[in-house]
Amino acid sequence: MGNKTLSLRPAVRLLLGAVSAAALLAAAPAHAQEPVQPIEVPKNVNPAKVELGKKLWFDPRLSRSGFISCNSCHNLSMGGSDNLKTSIGHNWQKGPINSPTVLNSSLNMAQFWDGRAKDLREQAGGPIANPGEMAFTHDLAVDMLRSIPQYVAEFQKVFGTDKLTIDEVTSAIAAFEETLVTPNARFDKWLKGDKQAINQQELRGYELFKNSGCVACHNGPNLGGTSFQKMGLVEPYKTDNPAEGRFAVTGNDAERFNFKVPTLRNVELTYPYFHDGAADTLAQAVDTMGRIQLGRTFTKQENADIVAFLKTLTGEQPEIMLPILPPSSDRTPRPQPFDD
Amino acid sequence: MGNKTLSLRPAVRLLLGAVSAAALLAAAPAHAQEPVQPIEVPKNVNPAKVELGKKLWFDPRLSRSGFISCNSCHNLSMGGSDNLKTSIGHNWQKGPINSPTVLNSSLNMAQFWDGRAKDLREQAGGPIANPGEMAFTHDLAVDMLRSIPQYVAEFQKVFGTDKLTIDEVTSAIAAFEETLVTPNARFDKWLKGDKQAINQQELRGYELFKNSGCVACHNGPNLGGTSFQKMGLVEPYKTDNPAEGRFAVTGNDAERFNFKVPTLRNVELTYPYFHDGAADTLAQAVDTMGRIQLGRTFTKQENADIVAFLKTLTGEQPEIMLPILPPSSDRTPRPQPFDD
Repeated sequence: MGNKTLSLRPAVRLLLGAVSAAALLAAAPAHAQEPVQPIEVPKNVNPAKVELGKKLWFDPRLSRSGFISCNSCHNLSMGGSDNLKTSIGHNWQKGPINSPTVLNSSLNMAQFWDGRAKDLREQAGGPIANPGEMAFTHDLAVDMLRSIPQYVAEFQKVFGTDKLTIDEVTSAIAAFEETLVTPNARFDKWLKGDKQAINQQELRGYELFKNSGCVACHNGPNLGGTSFQKMGLVEPYKTDNPAEGRFAVTGNDAERFNFKVPTLRNVELTYPYFHDGAADTLAQAVDTMGRIQLGRTFTKQENADIVAFLKTLTGEQPEIMLPILPPSSDRTPRPQPFDD
Repeated sequence: MGNKTLSLRPAVRLLLGAVSAAALLAAAPAHAQEPVQPIEVPKNVNPAKVELGKKLWFDPRLSRSGFISCNSCHNLSMGGSDNLKTSIGHNWQKGPINSPTVLNSSLNMAQFWDGRAKDLREQAGGPIANPGEMAFTHDLAVDMLRSIPQYVAEFQKVFGTDKLTIDEVTSAIAAFEETLVTPNARFDKWLKGDKQAINQQELRGYELFKNSGCVACHNGPNLGGTSFQKMGLVEPYKTDNPAEGRFAVTGNDAERFNFKVPTLRNVELTYPYFHDGAADTLAQAVDTMGRIQLGRTFTKQENADIVAFLKTLTGEQPEIMLPILPPSSDRTPRPQPFDD
């Protein structure tokens, strides 16, 4: 008998859905009923490990040139991104893909646009050794760190060993990255019951965002990062960018052009948009997404409403005290920015 | 009669000098008697202007590529320098000269190695428009800033006008730079009377630094920045670097290879050394300076003593909360990192 509510016919469920949607508008929303959840600040962080990870994050000596740090392409002054279509790597190489934001990236199911790294730790080793990015090697990075007494002492304190390995390096960077969350966006305040936190236009935008199907992919606390989806679902996406997405990882032809759905958190700060960085503005991005993913052309007003909603997703940016890096010692190998 | 003390014969004055030097070693030193003075923290700063200047300092949108900011080459995590022989500019161009530290640069009589800018304000406009550095123009930089409502409001608040000019930009950057001083180095504590602040080796190094003539050029609160001096005074300095120093500014042949004497504050952090960045370590730099400027070869012990003294000049680094930059608006021109 108790099963009756679970076996209601679809029409009845839809009706109940409409009722509860109306109730949502009338009462303070309980975010348990929403497909989006507020960002929560991580607990149980290890402050010494986070501090070490922060130093490594800002240390350009992890690159061959001594000029490029993690923060170069995931700039914490700019929403954890570089605001370029594709990034600039060693020797001014043009990167193949848009740099995703590091903010809230711990909430993604996998890292990189094609999800080839299972977590932040695995990701962190990538750019250091990528010839088109920091163009270093893990061995050289570790040698550099081992030549600096302050780093040696700090790794020893954090990891309790004298080894100083690349795994410790990426583990510390990941620990820092896990703290880079952006709570208390206006939308989160609304989710938590503050009805005044967003205005009528923003609320209309959110309703349209849900009703038109955006939320099918952009859901969860990070409004994305929970699935791979084909770029160009309804209509092909035209781009010169050769990236093939998930196919490059799995070799499965059905996953060609499947990319990790990017987070919409702080999307106001993380322009330009898409894996190729082709959309300069939120209005363009919403328009393109509507057409190629949903087969829908948003009116100017609808587009503006959704953009207004998206701007409520800008959270409190991490407060970062710039680290002072331990100086190289006399035996630290010097960077090699130029080939001559 | 009161003039008698002022008209003592030179020999007597020398004798009195020796007595007071001995007294110095016995009693707490009064820094009025030393050729080096402690760093003082600037007063009367304008917090809103400094904050605006800090944003501009970290904003790579002041460069054509959107990738290079003031902080790229004067990195506040690394002693206000980039720790490269010469810097990396737009399109990975190799810079012509070593980036001087921004720390305490307000204490220099002029800016750049050749002193071509009379003050920080004049200096700040240089790299923005230098084709080999940020490769932008002042007009494009101002256009960019004017397209960003948060910047417009902030300039209005600070300067009380709606103009937003390059002079306001450089004035704000200079105001931030003026705060980048490093007080309370151990040597400053010693100067102020704390005899325990430096050890015997460091004190020996300081005495040798004075007695051997280093202090003739490296004096004042910044231990430098007060004169132009010929690089290679006693013995020619061999370098592939074509910089001609002060001659490039004045056209006066007598000033060829005259460079502004660099500060020794935080010199432990600002490697490599000299205008060409040719000396990787302090030991090398001290050795070279001894030979080519003073005609003196320091023994290994003497060199180590001077290096030990130099490391007492590392002051408290500025505590910089990383600014969050106002996002570009839809009408902000996008950076052009690549020529295609």
